[in-house]
Amino acid sequence: MKVTVKIMLKNGVLDPQGKAIEHALGGLGFEGVGEVRQGKVITLEMEDGMDKEEVHAQVVRMCESLLANPVIEDYDIEII
Amino acid sequence: MKVTVKIMLKNGVLDPQGKAIEHALGGLGFEGVGEVRQGKVITLEMEDGMDKEEVHAQVVRMCESLLANPVIEDYDIEII
Repeated sequence: MKVTVKIMLKNGVLDPQGKAIEHALGGLGFEGVGEVRQGKVITLEMEDGMDKEEVHAQVVRMCESLLANPVIEDYDIEII
Repeated sequence: MKVTVKIMLKNGVLDPQGKAIEHALGGLGFEGVGEVRQGKVITLEMEDGMDKEEVHAQVVRMCESLLANPVIEDYDIEII
């Protein structure tokens, strides 16, 4: 079972990496680009045969304790 | 128009960040976790009214020239 976790800074939290990309794209001549934000994506290979809801609950615990900083980041879990 | 670009190291390219997360999850007592890989996700706000195919071609150029390292990274573009 494959789990994808997308972690982005919350709206309103300053994202210097995104801003740097935004400026670099402008400098390279790309037009029509508005706000750019950068986050991280983590893919986990989980043991097959586990209950999907159980896996979801486990990945939420992983996010809260290690993968994300819940104070400033939002996470989105997708299980395939 | 919102564009999401997911950038991951190609299969076979060593991913030390992913390995570090894998070990940390094991150390925290999470079981049944196989391979972990970490990548980045970039969201771009593009001007509305642009042609979708044109936007896609433009984002491919952004990936090749700035966002990704096409030698070791794969990218996946999603336009909403």
